[in-house]
Amino acid sequence: MKNQLESVEEMLLMGPGPSCVAQTVYQALARPTIGHLDPKFIEIMDQIKAMLQQLMNTQNRLTLPISGTGSSGMETCFVNLIEPGDRVLILINGVFGKRMEDLAGRLGAQVDTLEFEWGTPVDPDAVKDKLAGNDYMMVALVHAETSTGVCNPVAAVSGVVKDSPALFLVDTVTSLGGIPVDVDAWHMDAVYSGTQKCLSCPPGLAPVSFSQAAVDKVMNRKTKVPNWYLDLTMIINYWEGAQRAYHHTAPINMLYALYQALFDILEEGTKNVFQRHKMAHEQLVDVLKPMGLDMLVAPGFRLPMLNAVKIPQGADDAGIRKRLLTDFHIEIGAGLGPLAGKIWRIGVMGHTARPENIDRLAQAFSEVL
Amino acid sequence: MKNQLESVEEMLLMGPGPSCVAQTVYQALARPTIGHLDPKFIEIMDQIKAMLQQLMNTQNRLTLPISGTGSSGMETCFVNLIEPGDRVLILINGVFGKRMEDLAGRLGAQVDTLEFEWGTPVDPDAVKDKLAGNDYMMVALVHAETSTGVCNPVAAVSGVVKDSPALFLVDTVTSLGGIPVDVDAWHMDAVYSGTQKCLSCPPGLAPVSFSQAAVDKVMNRKTKVPNWYLDLTMIINYWEGAQRAYHHTAPINMLYALYQALFDILEEGTKNVFQRHKMAHEQLVDVLKPMGLDMLVAPGFRLPMLNAVKIPQGADDAGIRKRLLTDFHIEIGAGLGPLAGKIWRIGVMGHTARPENIDRLAQAFSEVL
Repeated sequence: MKNQLESVEEMLLMGPGPSCVAQTVYQALARPTIGHLDPKFIEIMDQIKAMLQQLMNTQNRLTLPISGTGSSGMETCFVNLIEPGDRVLILINGVFGKRMEDLAGRLGAQVDTLEFEWGTPVDPDAVKDKLAGNDYMMVALVHAETSTGVCNPVAAVSGVVKDSPALFLVDTVTSLGGIPVDVDAWHMDAVYSGTQKCLSCPPGLAPVSFSQAAVDKVMNRKTKVPNWYLDLTMIINYWEGAQRAYHHTAPINMLYALYQALFDILEEGTKNVFQRHKMAHEQLVDVLKPMGLDMLVAPGFRLPMLNAVKIPQGADDAGIRKRLLTDFHIEIGAGLGPLAGKIWRIGVMGHTARPENIDRLAQAFSEVL
Repeated sequence: MKNQLESVEEMLLMGPGPSCVAQTVYQALARPTIGHLDPKFIEIMDQIKAMLQQLMNTQNRLTLPISGTGSSGMETCFVNLIEPGDRVLILINGVFGKRMEDLAGRLGAQVDTLEFEWGTPVDPDAVKDKLAGNDYMMVALVHAETSTGVCNPVAAVSGVVKDSPALFLVDTVTSLGGIPVDVDAWHMDAVYSGTQKCLSCPPGLAPVSFSQAAVDKVMNRKTKVPNWYLDLTMIINYWEGAQRAYHHTAPINMLYALYQALFDILEEGTKNVFQRHKMAHEQLVDVLKPMGLDMLVAPGFRLPMLNAVKIPQGADDAGIRKRLLTDFHIEIGAGLGPLAGKIWRIGVMGHTARPENIDRLAQAFSEVL
């Protein structure tokens, strides 16, 4: 049998994730595997927690990576916090808000939603009105809606939610590491993220952080968390305290990679990293415009790291993406749901967010369009 | 800040997993990350499925790795198959059987158990008696009980279960790749495994396989699977068919590592691999005996890859493990639950199962005991 790995080639990853991975992170991934209870590994875990706290701007003790890809972070937040019958409000303006609604329903929550047109942001005033007549256990939204390129106004929504008894849950999968995520200042009670976007680590881990109020909700459940693998009441005993109790075998080498990815971001400095994303975004918008490629989202609400670009009339969506991939080794993303065939999703995430990559994409577009 | 990864050293991993990883697998892990919908990656996924089918001796179409460590494979099997009120029988003779009981209860199953003394195998006749007066949806047991070193008689139990309407669920986390796992011949309806034992791949993935009867049960559920991340009705659309529908971003680099680990096992030949485990086990028993280190399990039921060794009277359990780790760079495992302080768990799994490693452990033991 032919070994397919031998013909895997380096690609310029400009889709909605995974993003390009730095050599330092590949090297970390291939460091020798050690035991999940080895004191050396405990040191590494402790520093991963500290670096995540720093990047998330939080003092939350329960800040750690879950052993699964970004969506397992969503699962962790919902399954630990929701008990059957709990009333939750999901704010939806894209695929990843819809996904939250689906999951909350599976767990027996009474789900209310507020929906906004895809490509436009969540409106804090509408949230305020909705909260006025209701008593929710939780309000949830997506910070960076990867399906549309919209940056939701999390700070403004948090100002509304904090005056209600509801916990505030935020999906920061695509935002973390690319724009500020201020967990404490924005009164977030639970957040989840992924490693394969602006952290530029291969997919496989989901950082989460829980406030004390969220921890209290979990610890005072009437029933066990209906998920053994993601039960934070047990996972916390492995990630904290003097006695690290075995729960499941941690994904050692993936955690090495996350360690290095966080290390690199903090060494570059978060301000510099955010600025690099902003500049890559502006450069991208500038080079695409003359080619007739316009943005879906209004200027004030655009994400820097995920750019929804309208596909020009008559252009062959799949054919162009395929040519970029095959002839130029550049991956861009297709539209999802109602935006399929209408937009391309161009990521400038993490290590990908560099001027030479935008130039390379522009050159390729000029040939295939 | 000091980079802790720089001081990670190669260890001889002789605990209950993770096991030693071959250089080929480390190299695979660090291959360039590509997109989860890239046609090249789909080829890799297809071959992973085919290699898993070969190693598991099954024609099951639904044979794929779940994006989490071994325990997420357990979660996947239970959460997809169980609906509230389903009657299940769990056969328990160690920690991992107890864990199944815990999980089934969380999912609303009516759980019956048959318990056997830890260190002894499950008794098929007792199972037969239990099945006679009952109507279970599922019977579950652990093939290789990692907490005790017992090999449960799966073939014999399967002969009993197949005459009942129950589905047969087997934990093959520690057995797969070290001893034969004959999914089809043993009428297993659902199995789960992990990568960090005899597959000698770092922890992070959980191969699972479902028979047609198990797939039918999942597809005919009255309610959605109460877990979005592990819902096989959606995951299958990413792993099969002409249109690979995005579900969650696959852990690309971990899947490279699993690909290579399976590739290496099939290249060596499964018979040779099993023989290598058997010989390592026999060598281990032989060298430990003169040092007064006896086995917990009776000869006919010992696992080759996980050896439960009785700690001699008066020996300092934690102190000796610490000296092995610190002075000799060898990790062995502690006892779990009622066997804590009574046994050491010595793994000869996958790449670890080589004569020179047994010699090195014997030499170290001779100095620390």
